[in-house]
Amino acid sequence: MENFVYHCPTKIIFGKGTENQVGSEVSKYGKKVLLHYGGGSIKKSGLYDRVLKSLKNEALEIIELGGVQPNPRLSLVKEGIDICRKEKIDIILAVGGGSVIDSAKTIAVGVPYDGDVWDFFIEKAEPEKRIFIGVVLTIPASGSESSDSAVITNEDGMYKKGFNSNLLRPDFAILNPELTFTLPRYQTACGASDIMAHIMERYFTRVRDVELTDRLCEAALKTVINNTPIVLREPENYAARAEIMWTGTIAHNNLLDTGRIGDWASHKIEMEISGLYDLAHGAGLAIIFPAWMKYVYKNDVGRFARFAVRVWDVEPDFYDIEKVALEGIKKLEDFYREIGLPITLKEANIPYDRFEEMARKCTEMGPVGNFIKLNKDDVIRILEMSK
Amino acid sequence: MENFVYHCPTKIIFGKGTENQVGSEVSKYGKKVLLHYGGGSIKKSGLYDRVLKSLKNEALEIIELGGVQPNPRLSLVKEGIDICRKEKIDIILAVGGGSVIDSAKTIAVGVPYDGDVWDFFIEKAEPEKRIFIGVVLTIPASGSESSDSAVITNEDGMYKKGFNSNLLRPDFAILNPELTFTLPRYQTACGASDIMAHIMERYFTRVRDVELTDRLCEAALKTVINNTPIVLREPENYAARAEIMWTGTIAHNNLLDTGRIGDWASHKIEMEISGLYDLAHGAGLAIIFPAWMKYVYKNDVGRFARFAVRVWDVEPDFYDIEKVALEGIKKLEDFYREIGLPITLKEANIPYDRFEEMARKCTEMGPVGNFIKLNKDDVIRILEMSK
Repeated sequence: MENFVYHCPTKIIFGKGTENQVGSEVSKYGKKVLLHYGGGSIKKSGLYDRVLKSLKNEALEIIELGGVQPNPRLSLVKEGIDICRKEKIDIILAVGGGSVIDSAKTIAVGVPYDGDVWDFFIEKAEPEKRIFIGVVLTIPASGSESSDSAVITNEDGMYKKGFNSNLLRPDFAILNPELTFTLPRYQTACGASDIMAHIMERYFTRVRDVELTDRLCEAALKTVINNTPIVLREPENYAARAEIMWTGTIAHNNLLDTGRIGDWASHKIEMEISGLYDLAHGAGLAIIFPAWMKYVYKNDVGRFARFAVRVWDVEPDFYDIEKVALEGIKKLEDFYREIGLPITLKEANIPYDRFEEMARKCTEMGPVGNFIKLNKDDVIRILEMSK
Repeated sequence: MENFVYHCPTKIIFGKGTENQVGSEVSKYGKKVLLHYGGGSIKKSGLYDRVLKSLKNEALEIIELGGVQPNPRLSLVKEGIDICRKEKIDIILAVGGGSVIDSAKTIAVGVPYDGDVWDFFIEKAEPEKRIFIGVVLTIPASGSESSDSAVITNEDGMYKKGFNSNLLRPDFAILNPELTFTLPRYQTACGASDIMAHIMERYFTRVRDVELTDRLCEAALKTVINNTPIVLREPENYAARAEIMWTGTIAHNNLLDTGRIGDWASHKIEMEISGLYDLAHGAGLAIIFPAWMKYVYKNDVGRFARFAVRVWDVEPDFYDIEKVALEGIKKLEDFYREIGLPITLKEANIPYDRFEEMARKCTEMGPVGNFIKLNKDDVIRILEMSK
């Protein structure tokens, strides 16, 4: 086991009706709030009205900034930073999914920073302070509600980049599974894929002696695998929605990689695809992860066999461990298909003509991945295998 | 799944040599530290010297208060409160196991409180603030390093009582598994039993639809069950010590009962035994837990059968679920014996003549337990079954 620091101070408020506590929670952090959200879905669902009512009950001063897009843009972040400075905002309240939360986080660290907030993404600077951040989560997927990361797309070159800092963990996050009842099928499936990817990036490690976190990862994966088909069949099944929502948070708050070194190559490769083509991140992961697995599994067949047996209930065969390992990858692909996700670039209508560019951008800061290090040519080969 | 709030902001610093970071960590919270510890074991092991050196490197002003006993006493807590007030201490650094940490926590909430600190334990008052708390953990068992609880013994009547408050979670905790290499066998086994009990108290719930946390509990239990025999055989096996130490923290930081209602009757009954007889808490739990199980399992045989199958690898038999359930309890008893713990009061040399008194004290605030509510007579019967 590797030495580690684990510090996830986000307060989670979970359950039915909890969005109505948002006003009293926000009021612990100040008087002036930037309400940050995406398109119209929170207005259509009535969530916007409930949040506004709860904030007004506490006599909070509210400034709004909507319009966050999937793959949130740097230009809106900069607009948010300007507003926060001008209006002396105490706390940003993100109401939405990962895009809205990532946008809010980036605004929050950008406000007290003198330079260009993009500096954090290109490793030119590290944030040292931020204003407060609260979340009302509507999409279980990104884990951004308590994660230490944010991903933003810079329109200048369509660079999609993420960075990590413990400062990026929100102060509180409100999670009501009922808010996910109306999520469309495809978005639900993409969320499940994203959650699974967060766990698998951590699971596929070369660090030995990580029994507890191996088992916790397996527990979390099984929960998503069991409950995703249920919520696709029964969108208003509270129990199953709750399992997925809570697993989505646990999957990405760093508990599952304590003592381990995660891989993250698949995420980095996928970010080049969804950065260029505006494909949903979870769909991109369903394409890239199996290809990555087939490209790397021979470096530790035992771990892939364990994945097959413990997560997918493949029968162990100790005379042909490779067959077991491959069967696990096959089960993962079958699962993606079952929940309606593409598992090839072709199925997602992604053209094959920019592999070179994607691989170059992906590896421009050096090789990606830790399970094995992948250089530009490796990435091209994985993209070829994703066709 | 029940609604819940989960907020565990303790910063965990885990791994080899991490105790040497204590000075720089403490210095983030102030200049004046109360160094709180137990007997001579930290001096014998050299830990005391390393901690002192690290604190002095940061030019911290150090006041010492040693002498914490197992089942820590209220009188020493009060002494600590007086010292902190007089010396204007910024942060209490607990170096030791659960007793030292619980003593430090109680001092920390006692310092700014005008009344008697025992008020918190008898539900007469709730703490509203505290001074800072840091931990260097030497015994994986209590989970106190990031838990929201503290247990103290009031010498006036030998009342052993605990209370919960999110304020009781330390600001940081340093966990180096190497520090546990020298733990005696019996103490190692008692620690494992305590950790398992923290998980089992949460596992045995009547709340339905708690799949993720069920699986996380099973993962944590299996890890303790696998690694305890290893550390008893090989006390300096870092990997196994690390698994147990990290599981001990996860077992009691409330992650494993998110959305559930835990039981806690066994803990409350055991506290009467170790309060009166100074028996190690983990040993008392090894006696009480199987008796509690036999007394209550018929109220939800399915859950006990699940425990048997998932945790103890008992073969499922769907024609005789009760047999499966009982087999799980038997496996737990066998495990306690295997690691050298008593499983009856007789084996622990506890006399049978004060059951009435223990049961009365235990239930004086009302029935105990949530799996089923136990009144005084139930507790007497469980004590009878523990003979």
